[in-house]
Amino acid sequence: MIYESIVTTCSREGVPHVAPFGVQWQAGKVLIMPFKPSTTLSNILQTGHAVLNLTDDVRVFAAAIAKKSGVDVPLVAVAQGVRLQHCLTHHGLQLESVEDDSVRPRVWMQVQDSQSHAPFMGFNRAQAAVVELAVLVSRLQRLPIEKITSEMAYLQIAIDKTAGAHELEAWQWLVDCVNNHIAQQSGMQQA
Amino acid sequence: MIYESIVTTCSREGVPHVAPFGVQWQAGKVLIMPFKPSTTLSNILQTGHAVLNLTDDVRVFAAAIAKKSGVDVPLVAVAQGVRLQHCLTHHGLQLESVEDDSVRPRVWMQVQDSQSHAPFMGFNRAQAAVVELAVLVSRLQRLPIEKITSEMAYLQIAIDKTAGAHELEAWQWLVDCVNNHIAQQSGMQQA
Repeated sequence: MIYESIVTTCSREGVPHVAPFGVQWQAGKVLIMPFKPSTTLSNILQTGHAVLNLTDDVRVFAAAIAKKSGVDVPLVAVAQGVRLQHCLTHHGLQLESVEDDSVRPRVWMQVQDSQSHAPFMGFNRAQAAVVELAVLVSRLQRLPIEKITSEMAYLQIAIDKTAGAHELEAWQWLVDCVNNHIAQQSGMQQA
Repeated sequence: MIYESIVTTCSREGVPHVAPFGVQWQAGKVLIMPFKPSTTLSNILQTGHAVLNLTDDVRVFAAAIAKKSGVDVPLVAVAQGVRLQHCLTHHGLQLESVEDDSVRPRVWMQVQDSQSHAPFMGFNRAQAAVVELAVLVSRLQRLPIEKITSEMAYLQIAIDKTAGAHELEAWQWLVDCVNNHIAQQSGMQQA
């Protein structure tokens, strides 16, 4: 079972890094599988720590996937580095072992500390739609554009019916990515 | 903003009722909009209370939409009636006012008591896929079957990649509903 979450790490020099990861829990341990090269992997190997943030603020996912600069993602210092200020729960993690791999190593982490900060509000279909579009945008180069635009049309229904301000903002960043990609593709075809 | 959640109520005689609702929060109050006739509405008018359950167990949603009997949904008594045993958070609600309507009254509830029971684990794409299929199944009679089956094919990807046992079970109940509907439709066309 894979949970979409935000992993925050710091470099040895203390530079924070915020990245979405689909993580797994197995026997009380957290499994992260970063694709190389990975700043998250490098930071975990440098410091031995990471923080797993469970947040319903989909803007954090969308900003990372859309490579949106200038988005304010407030962080708070914790023993294992930094956590998202606006997460529902965070788990401070310590590196246990790495099964190395040239493409995608398996990084096993132990939970040192877990804290809840805000209650789960329930499923929101617009949040799920943003997560789905973020997945599609992360595969823009590999998927047929017709597939992406047809799925977007379906996901748009949940956005129109159930979104709040955060979801609308995140959705728009990702839609901009798709539109930029379409414009670039048509530009290349004309050249 | 609409959150998909489970509303539990009891009749005056104490018979519990479990129903999925897309609820809204406005100025700290919970707005529930049941379509008439509604056991939930009837129970709230009888007792003046309800419980809003935020759960990530999608089987509760799927069982209700699939009208699946024999599914064990453990309940726990609380001051406002009953809550789901396996919810992440529950809010005990007291009726404030009803804006009546022949189709869909607006029921405003005040929060009397809020308790968290388990932390949010993060977004799970399979849970979101079950919620989406539950919405489609609730509209089986109104949507073209081709639309439902094509969306199912897309949602199946998230099920295959990210589901756990609960999500697979809930997904199958809903798929069975779609298949039964298709079988009934083709039966009618042949008759």
